[in-house]
Amino acid sequence: MAAPIEFYFDFSSPYSYLASESIEALAARHGREVDYKPILLGAAFKISGMRPLPEVPLKGEYSRRDFERSARLAGLPFVLPDPFPISTVGAARAYLWLSDVEPARARAFVHAAFRAYFAEGRNISDSAVLAGVLRSIGVDADAALAAIQQPDIKERLKAQVDASLARGVFGAPFIFVDGEPFWGNDRLPQVERWLAGGPF
Amino acid sequence: MAAPIEFYFDFSSPYSYLASESIEALAARHGREVDYKPILLGAAFKISGMRPLPEVPLKGEYSRRDFERSARLAGLPFVLPDPFPISTVGAARAYLWLSDVEPARARAFVHAAFRAYFAEGRNISDSAVLAGVLRSIGVDADAALAAIQQPDIKERLKAQVDASLARGVFGAPFIFVDGEPFWGNDRLPQVERWLAGGPF
Repeated sequence: MAAPIEFYFDFSSPYSYLASESIEALAARHGREVDYKPILLGAAFKISGMRPLPEVPLKGEYSRRDFERSARLAGLPFVLPDPFPISTVGAARAYLWLSDVEPARARAFVHAAFRAYFAEGRNISDSAVLAGVLRSIGVDADAALAAIQQPDIKERLKAQVDASLARGVFGAPFIFVDGEPFWGNDRLPQVERWLAGGPF
Repeated sequence: MAAPIEFYFDFSSPYSYLASESIEALAARHGREVDYKPILLGAAFKISGMRPLPEVPLKGEYSRRDFERSARLAGLPFVLPDPFPISTVGAARAYLWLSDVEPARARAFVHAAFRAYFAEGRNISDSAVLAGVLRSIGVDADAALAAIQQPDIKERLKAQVDASLARGVFGAPFIFVDGEPFWGNDRLPQVERWLAGGPF
């Protein structure tokens, strides 16, 4: 089987949520798996000088409308959460831990966490909410919350963020197909074209 | 006939060039015309704090790759011009003047100017180059270059830029369909869906 699609994302990125709902089916149509790689966009913003969308005058207002319209068009539930954006360090670490100890549930966690935040408006930066999300997919939440405080998991997330920056990841979702970079939910048609027909 | 699609753009915007090559056919498929509205993105950047793509760390490098890849996929010639970006005040004013005195050639000017800059790498901020573009579509370039120094044309462009900001235009291309805003060449599929089936 060909190499997995690498899907860099932040759990606080609405367009990452939207893309996460279709990327696995897209990949499967072309015999690929998806390798989820949670990162923290704040680190990229420090380098690029970019800011979270709600803080950008003019663009922030449009973006709120676009999130909702794009979700409606895709037939996906969406609420703009409050607070938004949030710190997603806990969710990202939980994913990394799960991908080691319960890889079969790691993918389910991506979807459960995204839906909790963007479909139900639940603040997954809150440990109790995060625990509820973990339990909803059958994970030992106490073990998870303890694990994400351990130095090895913290270090692993930091290394993943640093690696993403070294590869030029400045936003999310950010997808690599055999090394070719594609930024944004908007680029899924190009990703599919690339998978189907090779480089263009 | 239904109202025209409003197409705000900057002559120095690569994604505006790409969109300009398909927006008229898209509109025509749904019985619409295109109302071209050149603006100056620098004015929006002052409000939003955004910067021209080449100046944004990480994003700038990706964008250069994305310009070229998107052009290839669309089958359009593209060169990243040098210098880029440029001031497009002359080209924008020339369009406004033409739309008054030679409206039949105004649309041809949009395409000729975009292609001169993004397909041939000619610096349309240079008066001699701009004159050449105007002559190539049969316009009296001397009259045009004189007209764009007149206060009424200057004021008209300023008013159009101010109006775009008041409507929330922060980037280009920025398209309104019956008042609904869509930002970016990426959004043309949504524009088409809206035209075909109404609001979603």
